[in-house]
Amino acid sequence: MSLTKFNPTCLRLGAAAAVLLAPVMAFAQEAAPAAAEAAPDVAPHVVYILNTLLFLVAGFLVFFMAAGFAMLEAGLVRSKNVSMQLTKNVALFGIAALMYLIVGYNLMYPGDNWTILNVIGAFSITSLQPVGATAADVDVSYASAGSDFFFQLMFCAATASIVSGTLAERIKLWPFLIFTAILTGLIYPIQASWKWGGGFLDANFGFLDFAGSTLVHSVGGWAALVGAIILGARAGKYGPNGQVNPIPGSNMGFATLGTFILWLGWFGFNGGSQLAMGSIGDVTDVSRIFANTNMAAVGGSVAALVLTQILYKKIDITMVLNGALAGLVSITAEPLTPSLVSAVLIGAVGGILVVVTVPLLDKFKIDDVVGAIPVHLVCGIWGTIAVVFTNSDATLYGQLASIVIIGLFVSITSAIVWMILKATMGIRVSAEEEMMGLDVVEIGVEAYPEFTKR
Amino acid sequence: MSLTKFNPTCLRLGAAAAVLLAPVMAFAQEAAPAAAEAAPDVAPHVVYILNTLLFLVAGFLVFFMAAGFAMLEAGLVRSKNVSMQLTKNVALFGIAALMYLIVGYNLMYPGDNWTILNVIGAFSITSLQPVGATAADVDVSYASAGSDFFFQLMFCAATASIVSGTLAERIKLWPFLIFTAILTGLIYPIQASWKWGGGFLDANFGFLDFAGSTLVHSVGGWAALVGAIILGARAGKYGPNGQVNPIPGSNMGFATLGTFILWLGWFGFNGGSQLAMGSIGDVTDVSRIFANTNMAAVGGSVAALVLTQILYKKIDITMVLNGALAGLVSITAEPLTPSLVSAVLIGAVGGILVVVTVPLLDKFKIDDVVGAIPVHLVCGIWGTIAVVFTNSDATLYGQLASIVIIGLFVSITSAIVWMILKATMGIRVSAEEEMMGLDVVEIGVEAYPEFTKR
Amino acid sequence: MSLTKFNPTCLRLGAAAAVLLAPVMAFAQEAAPAAAEAAPDVAPHVVYILNTLLFLVAGFLVFFMAAGFAMLEAGLVRSKNVSMQLTKNVALFGIAALMYLIVGYNLMYPGDNWTILNVIGAFSITSLQPVGATAADVDVSYASAGSDFFFQLMFCAATASIVSGTLAERIKLWPFLIFTAILTGLIYPIQASWKWGGGFLDANFGFLDFAGSTLVHSVGGWAALVGAIILGARAGKYGPNGQVNPIPGSNMGFATLGTFILWLGWFGFNGGSQLAMGSIGDVTDVSRIFANTNMAAVGGSVAALVLTQILYKKIDITMVLNGALAGLVSITAEPLTPSLVSAVLIGAVGGILVVVTVPLLDKFKIDDVVGAIPVHLVCGIWGTIAVVFTNSDATLYGQLASIVIIGLFVSITSAIVWMILKATMGIRVSAEEEMMGLDVVEIGVEAYPEFTKR
Repeated sequence: MSLTKFNPTCLRLGAAAAVLLAPVMAFAQEAAPAAAEAAPDVAPHVVYILNTLLFLVAGFLVFFMAAGFAMLEAGLVRSKNVSMQLTKNVALFGIAALMYLIVGYNLMYPGDNWTILNVIGAFSITSLQPVGATAADVDVSYASAGSDFFFQLMFCAATASIVSGTLAERIKLWPFLIFTAILTGLIYPIQASWKWGGGFLDANFGFLDFAGSTLVHSVGGWAALVGAIILGARAGKYGPNGQVNPIPGSNMGFATLGTFILWLGWFGFNGGSQLAMGSIGDVTDVSRIFANTNMAAVGGSVAALVLTQILYKKIDITMVLNGALAGLVSITAEPLTPSLVSAVLIGAVGGILVVVTVPLLDKFKIDDVVGAIPVHLVCGIWGTIAVVFTNSDATLYGQLASIVIIGLFVSITSAIVWMILKATMGIRVSAEEEMMGLDVVEIGVEAYPEFTKR
Repeated sequence: MSLTKFNPTCLRLGAAAAVLLAPVMAFAQEAAPAAAEAAPDVAPHVVYILNTLLFLVAGFLVFFMAAGFAMLEAGLVRSKNVSMQLTKNVALFGIAALMYLIVGYNLMYPGDNWTILNVIGAFSITSLQPVGATAADVDVSYASAGSDFFFQLMFCAATASIVSGTLAERIKLWPFLIFTAILTGLIYPIQASWKWGGGFLDANFGFLDFAGSTLVHSVGGWAALVGAIILGARAGKYGPNGQVNPIPGSNMGFATLGTFILWLGWFGFNGGSQLAMGSIGDVTDVSRIFANTNMAAVGGSVAALVLTQILYKKIDITMVLNGALAGLVSITAEPLTPSLVSAVLIGAVGGILVVVTVPLLDKFKIDDVVGAIPVHLVCGIWGTIAVVFTNSDATLYGQLASIVIIGLFVSITSAIVWMILKATMGIRVSAEEEMMGLDVVEIGVEAYPEFTKR
Repeated sequence: MSLTKFNPTCLRLGAAAAVLLAPVMAFAQEAAPAAAEAAPDVAPHVVYILNTLLFLVAGFLVFFMAAGFAMLEAGLVRSKNVSMQLTKNVALFGIAALMYLIVGYNLMYPGDNWTILNVIGAFSITSLQPVGATAADVDVSYASAGSDFFFQLMFCAATASIVSGTLAERIKLWPFLIFTAILTGLIYPIQASWKWGGGFLDANFGFLDFAGSTLVHSVGGWAALVGAIILGARAGKYGPNGQVNPIPGSNMGFATLGTFILWLGWFGFNGGSQLAMGSIGDVTDVSRIFANTNMAAVGGSVAALVLTQILYKKIDITMVLNGALAGLVSITAEPLTPSLVSAVLIGAVGGILVVVTVPLLDKFKIDDVVGAIPVHLVCGIWGTIAVVFTNSDATLYGQLASIVIIGLFVSITSAIVWMILKATMGIRVSAEEEMMGLDVVEIGVEAYPEFTKR
C-alpha cells in the first residue's frame, strides 16, 4: 500500500529522497572528507521523525475540528434540537472512523492495488506498522503509517461533519448515520483516490487540490445540497408568498467558539497537507501555508463584516463567522503559492460569495441551517478555480473538469443513497415531532432544561 | 533524582542509549569512514530535543484536559451549582500543582532515594535544570527535567479532576480542596511510584500500565467512590421506594465540548507516555498510540450509542459522551500493542460497561453526578486487565494483584481522609444550602443569572 | 529585514551560530576524524526546522487565545451584548492581522531600515520567502519568515483583544475597530520596535521584557484605561452616592473556558518567545518557561481564591479566573530565570494585585467590564519590575524608565485617537441603545434568543 498522497509535494519528496541517497552512492575511495561534505543536511531518520510529527500535530488539530463543527452547529440550531445536533456530531465521527478503518483508507490510497484501474481502489482493512518498528519496517522517506492514517481519517470525518449542519432540525438520526457510513466508507475515499491516491484526475487531468477545497469541502457540500433538496425545508422557514422567515440559532457563543476551533484546526488541515517538514524547503512551505491560511480567514471575515454592514446597515455575526470559514475553504485548494496579500484576496472573495449566496439558496427554498453549502460547496469551487491565479502548474480546464466530475459523482451517488433511505426507512421526522424538537423525540435529553421557555 | 518513568519504554530507552554510545566505543584506527557509517541515526542532542518536545506538546494537551473536565462537569450539573463546579476545577488544578511541586513529583520518582524501600519515596521540592543548560547538566538520553515535571504534573491534576465530578452539587468547597491536596501530594504520587517510580509493583509484580488506567483513572475513581459513599446522595436523587429520579444536567453543549477536549487531550496523555520520539521506533509507536487511542474512543461511543438505542429506544447523549471517555480510559493501560481493530473492541467493551454500570450504581444509591466511577474506575480496571490480551509481557496475576493493591491503598487512605474531614469541618452543605445551590451559598456569583427560571 | 527579536535569547542564538560554523572553519589536513568530532551537536538545517516548528506550534497556541478572549468577554458581559462582544473579537483579529501585514510587522522589526533612527522603523508590507526555499533563501540560524510573521502577528492581535473587554457594553463597533487599526498598525509595533526591534529601549536602557508584560499586556492595558476614562462608565454601574452596582456576567461557563484557553495559549506566548529550540540549552529553557508559566497561573489563581475567601467570606469566581490571568501576565516579562517557587510567588502577587485593584478602579469610577486593567496593566507593570528579582541582567532603572516611556507613549497616542474618534463619529451608543443592548442595535442577532427573559 502506498502511503503517498499524490500532490505536488510528492515531487519534492522524491527529490528529497534522491538527495538523501546521494551520500551512499557517492561513497568512494577518497571518501572520508567527501562523505562528511555530502552528508544529507538532515539525517534520513530525522526526516522521518519530523514528517511523522507533522502528521501527529496536524492530525490532532484537525481532530479538534470535530468539536468545532459540533459547537458551530449546536449554536446555530434552536435549543430544542441541540442535544440531537451534538449527538450527531459525536456519532458521525465514530461512524466515519470505523468506515475509514474498515475500507476507506485503503480504498483512497490503493498504490498499485486498484480494483478498477485508476478509478476504484482495493478493499481492505487498515493495519499498522509493528511495535518498535525499524527503518526496514517503514518508508523512511515518508512518515509512519499510523500517523498518516490518523491524519487522513480526520479529513474523512470533516467531510461528514459538513453534511450534518445543513440537514439539521428535521432529519432522523439513524438514516443520517447510514448515509454517513456510505459517504465516509465509499463516496469520499473513491473520489479522493482519483487525485490523492494517484487516480485518473491526478494522472490525466493535472488536477491540483492541495488540501481539499474540492475533495473534502465541495464533496461535503454536494452531499449536503442533494440531501437538503430531497429532505425539504424546515417547517415554517419559507412562507406561502415567497417570504423567508429567519430562524435564529440558540447560542452565538457556541457558534463563535466553533468557528475559532475550526480556524485553529485548519492550520493542521492545510499545513499538514504539505506532508513533510524534514527540510528547509518543506518547513518553510508549512510556514507559508500557516500564514496564508490565517490571512484568508481574515480576508473572508472582514469582507463579510464590511459587506453586511453596507448591504443591511447591521452586522450579521453569523455572516462574519461564515465569512471566516469561507476564507478558509477558499484557500484550501492552494494555501502554498499565494502571497499573503493574494491569500487575503482569495479569502475575501470567499467571504463575499457567502454573503451573496445565502439569500440565493433561500430563493430556491433550499434550507441550509448553518450555511454549509455557501461555505463549503460554493467556496470550495471558488478556491479550486483560484489555484490557477497563483500556481502555474494548474490549468483552468483541469480544475473545472475535476470539479464537474467530482460534483456529478458525489451528487448522483448521494442522491441515490438519500432516495433509497427515504423510500425505505424514511429520512424525516413527522411534522409534530419536528415541532416538539428532536431532543425530546429521539434523544430524550434536553440540552438546556432550565433555560428554555417551554 | 531519576527522571525515568519505569515502564516498558525504559528498556527501549536503554537500548537507544547503547546505540548512541556505540560510535564513541567503536572509534578506532581505520575509523574515518567507519565512524561516518556508525554514526547514530539520530544525533543524541536531537533525540533529547525531540523527547523534550514530545513532553511539551503532550503536556499542553493534557493540561487542556483541565478545561475538558471543567466543561463536562459544568454541563452535567444543574445551573445553580455551575459556578461552584467551575471554581472547583480551577482551584483543584492549582492545589494539585502546588502539592506536586512541593512534594508529589519527587515522591513519585525517587530514583535511588526511597524513604521506605520501594514503597515510599523521598520528600523534597522540585527544582529545574539551570538556564541555558548544556549536555553536562541534563540526561541527554532522556528529556529536560522541566518538560518531564510539566507533563507529569498534568496527570496528577487529572486524577483530582475525576473526583470533582462525582461529588458535585453537595460537597463543600474547602474540605474538597483539602482532600485534593492530600490526594495529589501523597496518595497519587506514592501509589504511582510503585510502578512508574520503579517501586515494588514494577520490580516484583511485572505490572504494566502504560499511561495509567489504574494509576491515574482508577485512583481518581476509588477516591470518588469512597467519597460518594461517605458523602451520601444528593437530596431527591433516590426516592423512598427505590425509585431513581434523574437530575438532568444544565448544558449539553458544555458536556459535549468537554468530552471533545478530553478526547483531544488524551492524545497527549497516551502518546506522551511513550516518553520518547527520537527514533523511528519511538515515533512510529507514538503514531500507533494516537491511532489506537482515537479508535478506542470511537469504539466506546458507538457501542454506547447502539446499546442505549437498543435498551431504551432513545439515545442518551450523556451515555454516548461517557462511552467515548470509557473507551479512552480502557485503552490507556495499553494503547501501543493492540491493532486498530483490537483498540475498537477494547473501547467498545468500555462503552458497554458504562451503560451497564450506571444503573447498577443507582441500585446501591451511590450518586455519581457525572458518571466518573463507571468511566474511570470500572473501565480503568477493565483496561488494566485487557493488557493481557495484546501484550504478552503482562500477566493476569500481576495486573489483578496490582489493581487490588492500589484499590485497597487508595480506598483506605481516601476513606480515612474523608472521615476525618467529615468529623472535623464537615464535608456536606446543609439541606437548605443544597436546595439553594452552591453558587449562591459559597461562590456568590451565579453562572447564568439571566437564563434560569428562579 | 531582520527577523530577530532583540532579547537575551539573541546572544545565545549568536553563540549557537558560532558553534555551528565551527566545523567549517576547523576543516583541515588531518580532518577526517576531527571533522566528525567537531560536527555540530545539531545539524544547522535541523536547528532551523526546530526553531520554525517552535514558532508554528507556539503560534497556533497564541492564535487560540483569540478564542479565549472571546469566550472570557462573552461570559462577563450581559446577554444583551454577547453577540456584539463576539463580533468584536472576530473582527478585531481580522483588522489586527491586516494592519500588521500591511505595515506593523516591518515597522516592528526594522533591522537596519529605521525611518527615524531607533525610534520609528520602515513602512512596508510583509512578504514571505519563496516556495520551496533553500538554505540560500533563509536565515539558517533562525527560522522561516512565515513562521515568525505568524507568531508575531498573534501578539499584536492579543494586544487589541485586551482593549475590547474593558470597553464592552457601551462602545460603538466601528470606532472601536478604527482604534484597533491604529493600535495594531502603528502604536503597538512602534513601541515594540524599541525593544524587540532593537530600538533605543533595547540599545540604551537595557530593558528586559521576555514575552511582553509591558510591550503587549500593559500596552493593551494603557489603551484600555485611557479609553475607559474617555468613554465613561456603563449606565447604572455607579450610583449617585458613590455606591458601586455589580453587573453580573451572563455565562461563567464561557468565562472559565476562556480563561483555560488563554492559559493554554500562554505556553505558546511565553515558550515561543525563547525563539529557538534547536539545542539542549534552548529546549531546556523552553521547558523551564512552560513549567514556570503554569506555576505562575497557579500562584495567581490560588492567591485570589484564598484572598477573596478571607476578605469577602465567599469566593468570587471571576476573581479566581482573573487571578490566574494575573499570574500569567506577571510571569510574562521573565518566565525563564525564576525557580518554580519564585514563579508561584510572582504569580501570587499578581493575583493579590487584582483582588486589590478591582475595587480601587471602582473608586475612580473607571468601569472595566472584564477586569483587563488590573490584569494586564497592573500586573504587566508588576511583572516587568519583578524581572530584577531573578534576572541579574535587569536594572530597576531600565525597567521603570521603560515602563514609564511606553506608558506615556501609549496613553498619549491612544488618548489622541480616542478624542478624535469621539469628536468626529462618536464612540458611545445612545443611552437608549445601551439599555436595549448592542446586539439588537448594531448586530441584529441576539446571542441567546430563547434563554433571556426579555
